[in-house]
Amino acid sequence: MDALVTTTLSPSPLHDILAPNSIAIVGASADPTKRGYKAMVGLIKDGFPGAIYPINPKADMILGVKAWPSIADLPSPADLALICTPAATVPGLLAECGKKGIKGAIVLASGFRETGPEGAKLEQALYDAAQAGGVRVIGPNTSGMFNLHKKVNLLALANIKPGGIGFISQSGNMLLALVLEAEHNGHVGFSTYVGPGNQTDIGFNDYLRYLGQDPNTRVATLYVEGFRNGRRFLRVAREVTRIKPVVVYKSGSTEQGRKAASSHTGALAGSYAMTVDVLRQAGVNVVQDSDEILPVAEGLGLLQQARGKRVAIVSDGGGQATIASDRIAEAGLELAELTAETRERLGAILFPQASLVNPVDVAGSSDAKPSLLADCLEIVAADPNVDSVFLVGMFGGYHVRFAEDLLGDEMRGAEAMIELARKKTDKPVVVYSLYAPVRPPALRRLHEAGLPVYSSIEHAVRVLAALGERGLHLAENPEKVLTPPVTPDKAVQALFVMAHNEDRDLFEFEAKAMLRAHGVSVPDEMVVHDADDLAEAVARFGDQPLAMKVVSKDILHKSDAGGVRLNIRGEDDLRGAYARILKSCRDYDPAAVIRGVLVTPMARKGTEVIIGVIRDPIFGPVLMFGLGGIFVEVLEDVAFRSIPLSRYDARTMVEQIKARKILRGVRGEPALDREALVDLLLKVSSIVEAYPELSELDLNPVISYEHGYAIVDARVIVNRAAVTLGEG
Amino acid sequence: MDALVTTTLSPSPLHDILAPNSIAIVGASADPTKRGYKAMVGLIKDGFPGAIYPINPKADMILGVKAWPSIADLPSPADLALICTPAATVPGLLAECGKKGIKGAIVLASGFRETGPEGAKLEQALYDAAQAGGVRVIGPNTSGMFNLHKKVNLLALANIKPGGIGFISQSGNMLLALVLEAEHNGHVGFSTYVGPGNQTDIGFNDYLRYLGQDPNTRVATLYVEGFRNGRRFLRVAREVTRIKPVVVYKSGSTEQGRKAASSHTGALAGSYAMTVDVLRQAGVNVVQDSDEILPVAEGLGLLQQARGKRVAIVSDGGGQATIASDRIAEAGLELAELTAETRERLGAILFPQASLVNPVDVAGSSDAKPSLLADCLEIVAADPNVDSVFLVGMFGGYHVRFAEDLLGDEMRGAEAMIELARKKTDKPVVVYSLYAPVRPPALRRLHEAGLPVYSSIEHAVRVLAALGERGLHLAENPEKVLTPPVTPDKAVQALFVMAHNEDRDLFEFEAKAMLRAHGVSVPDEMVVHDADDLAEAVARFGDQPLAMKVVSKDILHKSDAGGVRLNIRGEDDLRGAYARILKSCRDYDPAAVIRGVLVTPMARKGTEVIIGVIRDPIFGPVLMFGLGGIFVEVLEDVAFRSIPLSRYDARTMVEQIKARKILRGVRGEPALDREALVDLLLKVSSIVEAYPELSELDLNPVISYEHGYAIVDARVIVNRAAVTLGEG
Repeated sequence: MDALVTTTLSPSPLHDILAPNSIAIVGASADPTKRGYKAMVGLIKDGFPGAIYPINPKADMILGVKAWPSIADLPSPADLALICTPAATVPGLLAECGKKGIKGAIVLASGFRETGPEGAKLEQALYDAAQAGGVRVIGPNTSGMFNLHKKVNLLALANIKPGGIGFISQSGNMLLALVLEAEHNGHVGFSTYVGPGNQTDIGFNDYLRYLGQDPNTRVATLYVEGFRNGRRFLRVAREVTRIKPVVVYKSGSTEQGRKAASSHTGALAGSYAMTVDVLRQAGVNVVQDSDEILPVAEGLGLLQQARGKRVAIVSDGGGQATIASDRIAEAGLELAELTAETRERLGAILFPQASLVNPVDVAGSSDAKPSLLADCLEIVAADPNVDSVFLVGMFGGYHVRFAEDLLGDEMRGAEAMIELARKKTDKPVVVYSLYAPVRPPALRRLHEAGLPVYSSIEHAVRVLAALGERGLHLAENPEKVLTPPVTPDKAVQALFVMAHNEDRDLFEFEAKAMLRAHGVSVPDEMVVHDADDLAEAVARFGDQPLAMKVVSKDILHKSDAGGVRLNIRGEDDLRGAYARILKSCRDYDPAAVIRGVLVTPMARKGTEVIIGVIRDPIFGPVLMFGLGGIFVEVLEDVAFRSIPLSRYDARTMVEQIKARKILRGVRGEPALDREALVDLLLKVSSIVEAYPELSELDLNPVISYEHGYAIVDARVIVNRAAVTLGEG
Repeated sequence: MDALVTTTLSPSPLHDILAPNSIAIVGASADPTKRGYKAMVGLIKDGFPGAIYPINPKADMILGVKAWPSIADLPSPADLALICTPAATVPGLLAECGKKGIKGAIVLASGFRETGPEGAKLEQALYDAAQAGGVRVIGPNTSGMFNLHKKVNLLALANIKPGGIGFISQSGNMLLALVLEAEHNGHVGFSTYVGPGNQTDIGFNDYLRYLGQDPNTRVATLYVEGFRNGRRFLRVAREVTRIKPVVVYKSGSTEQGRKAASSHTGALAGSYAMTVDVLRQAGVNVVQDSDEILPVAEGLGLLQQARGKRVAIVSDGGGQATIASDRIAEAGLELAELTAETRERLGAILFPQASLVNPVDVAGSSDAKPSLLADCLEIVAADPNVDSVFLVGMFGGYHVRFAEDLLGDEMRGAEAMIELARKKTDKPVVVYSLYAPVRPPALRRLHEAGLPVYSSIEHAVRVLAALGERGLHLAENPEKVLTPPVTPDKAVQALFVMAHNEDRDLFEFEAKAMLRAHGVSVPDEMVVHDADDLAEAVARFGDQPLAMKVVSKDILHKSDAGGVRLNIRGEDDLRGAYARILKSCRDYDPAAVIRGVLVTPMARKGTEVIIGVIRDPIFGPVLMFGLGGIFVEVLEDVAFRSIPLSRYDARTMVEQIKARKILRGVRGEPALDREALVDLLLKVSSIVEAYPELSELDLNPVISYEHGYAIVDARVIVNRAAVTLGEG
């Protein structure tokens, strides 16, 4: 059952700070209402074995521990300082920490960036002082930190059970909520908690790397209001998710929530749909509801992964088996198709009226012998078509429901389930019991042995889904090959420089030239500068219907300006259309500089898709894919991936959108060439990586066919800063 | 807060059975493992004041109560018989009940319809015997029944708290799950429970009517695997939802779940999306997850309704306010926009750093005075823009988190909240507290006083959404006017008879004639029987582009047969097209009888919508609306309403689909004439009601414009049985 992979991460520089051997409490106090008192009490009560240095200029002793008047007076540098004093004192104190050689500091005070420009200035001063002195900073504006396995609890929260959940949360209340829930309904404790606060210095990515390495953490769990460096976070997450599960709840899934979040911490929140997609791409298990955080973290922490999505249900009541089946299908899981052998083996031990087809319904067979359910679990777990096993019903409550003397057999059943999960199968065994709220002995035993038991079918299914997602991610990305960038082309770089010098973005024909330079198939085209060039166009394109589009940096909305003519055939019509385009555009904007008219054959009809790239302020370059028109604009049915992509990423991108049925062919139409789209997505990813000069790219539409595609329009926005820096 | 409406329902015939004064236990037993023993113990322990008649031919006394050898021997007829004997004995026993004058019987045995044809025969015998004797039957294959306020508990489940939740469940385990959950996390008990089992006689609609009238039931809650007479259920639900909330969980939301469900009870399950739509149309609160059943039932039972969807959040921690805001937006609720006066009043009592914009974040103001939260709730509840009030955070736990001596102020806060909810506002007050799992005193006090407290933000928001949905349903349907049927037209009836006699469905032109006869605007058209008629067509339609379609009952796929020609202009082209249609169709099927060719002007381009009617085996005639093409076929983005409709139903139907943005006008296009579509939906509803001869109707496509619409194709399937019966 222990599926922890022994991959190594580059070592975390936070180890000494988050697992400290000595702690200075700056602002330690004898006043029990103060944080500087509560933190001391916490350390002393929990039996922190290292040195505690209370710092208080007015006291000799605090809680029986010798106090020091200032940081400078400490007999030796502490690994960590907890700063409990007001915001204005913090920059000076961090400078002192630096001089003393203290490695890290937790700054509890609020009153920084989150309060406005004055606070932002103070936060900059804090950061500068910390950097100058080489002090790493947790916070400011943080609820604090604990590392229960190290007996360090600076949070003033008593009685938290140590265990395998590492938790990084921008909401202290969320920690409190999980702790209370775990105490009452859970069966796993916590390893390390940190409130990252404003993330001035240390951010989510650093904490995640630490949890990835922490041997006491079996699952890294994050409540995130905003990432500061999402791109770096994704890089770390890709590594950590290979070693242990990472669960993220990202708040601000709606416009209203984002407003509430930004008034809370001031972090840039980005688009929720994009955030979910790129986190999943990195192997993160994203939970959508806050009440799923603990159940999913517990289940992943205990069970780590399932091989796939095929679940076998064993139940003792049809109604709840139906509910479980509904939720399984809705979660994108599947009911495993049991082999004939499995059904035969089940049939041999169950009543004739039992249903041997998944969901297995024992139909009373276990009423007098609840341990029979363990036998059923063992049989379905041995089925090669099954990836995970789900017990649904009233196990644990048989001796309450039917007869007290069933308790012995129930306990035997629990032991058999534990034996199964520990020794006989590596497939996860998840239990839902309607008796879970009353914690009967057999369920308590399962708890103790590390088998997760849930009181909600919905939560149990979320856990099964998370286990399957993680397993598939690990399996399908054994050595996740990210597409490498192309080698930049000099001529393309020159296009960017020219566009920059002319204070414009790339023309459509230039954007297409960029694609063509890197082997992307782009329709033939020519730019006509003069009516006399039209004869050449006719010679080149023959009798095909042609499209004509004005080329001008001054005309952004070409159609509005009359700058586009479609389905033109023959030289006469071409000449007429050319003249009309020039006239319309001049009427539209007499000052517009017109560079010519692009002539290209009309693309055949097909299905429009859109491929776009933006540079997100949080996550950096991100690729978007969707079907054209209303699918993007009305239904927002799009998929995102962080660049660079693997082929798996590109494939799942195409399969993720709701309109995927259209790509697979509907109403008798043939399936579209999805593999060609996957190639194009990968190529775009590798081009974008090679050109920092490119800020945004839009291929809209790309027309997809049964074989291949046609890029009908291409738009590239120039990243002026990158060109100026000579990076191009 | 008590919003029970004093509408009267027609009296339930089930009263004497579900609130009996005397009970016969057929198969009463002295064996403690038998149901006939447990039921007796339950009645005796709970102190059932009425007569108990154990029936057992082999015993004189059971549990100290005189036993009777047979039903016939009873000294007087009981109100209810509980039949605990095997399936085969049941028809005979029911006959005995009938002779004795017993009004109702609960049949626990399984082994009927759900087991196959033999069982179905036995179930028919059961039904016949019951009908002959005038005995109403609960079950068979039922878990039983309780009425706690009457001290009748025939379920052998001890310690269930009496309260306001009435529950009808096709899964006995689901009752058990709710009872255990309510015992541990809930604060409301149960009134009456019935397991309807196979619903051979008494169905969900009968039980719902009973719960509607039962004064001890504040909320009717149903776990449904399948309705047997959905149409009657909707009729009852429409009445009951006006009096008290009705909560339905419908299992089988997915194909996999439906399979699991039908192997369980064998009930026809119908389409889940349709079921949800028609239940909501009747004012039912549908819950989608099984773990929401109890929280939503509790919240609706206690609070009944909110005026609307505008929620004010008061929180003491930004993170959870953000989560609440996200869930509120996702649930279709709104964050109320607080008035300037409200913000001013809040500002006067809160710290300067508090956020006065909804979600209100007190930002530490309540840390030393938790009762301040009650003041904030009172202020936002007084705001006219607010429909419901949501407290989010750690209320109840202040004395744990901060200082023990805050307990007094917390209790004062709880009392103030109770006072607010009872006397000062009729708006619902819902509390989420992260301390709910540990049940601190202030939260226990709120519980006792009937204020719902939740330990999940998600569940609390589901409750707020349900309250708002119910309130809007009641408000927008004050006297819900259902569109009356049209008066059937003799000529149209004749069309049905003719079609029936010719063993075909209506031709397109006949279907359109039916619509036209009832005032629906249908494009002009003529059926050409002969090439010489084409001159008349030209005279009639002029130079408009025309569509031509073959009229033949033998050619179902007109396009495949070459039977459709579009965009024809002028007599020559018409003649050519006419000849080609005839030739193609004869080539396609030489035996086809061709009745002519329909000629009609081409409709202008616009947005395609689909209007359809089916007669669902469960819910009867149901109207469907959606956008054409992929929206229906790929995205399944459609809305359903049971016929007849109110104008409100038709309007919400058009607003419900995800593609509603397109109807409102996207990409600079004008909004479409939704009111015309609403009129058309209502007209179709009233036509379908008038013609039992009509089995299915399909207007596909209807082209919707900025003003009006055009019905381009109409298809009517004839209900042969109805025509034969002379109903037409």
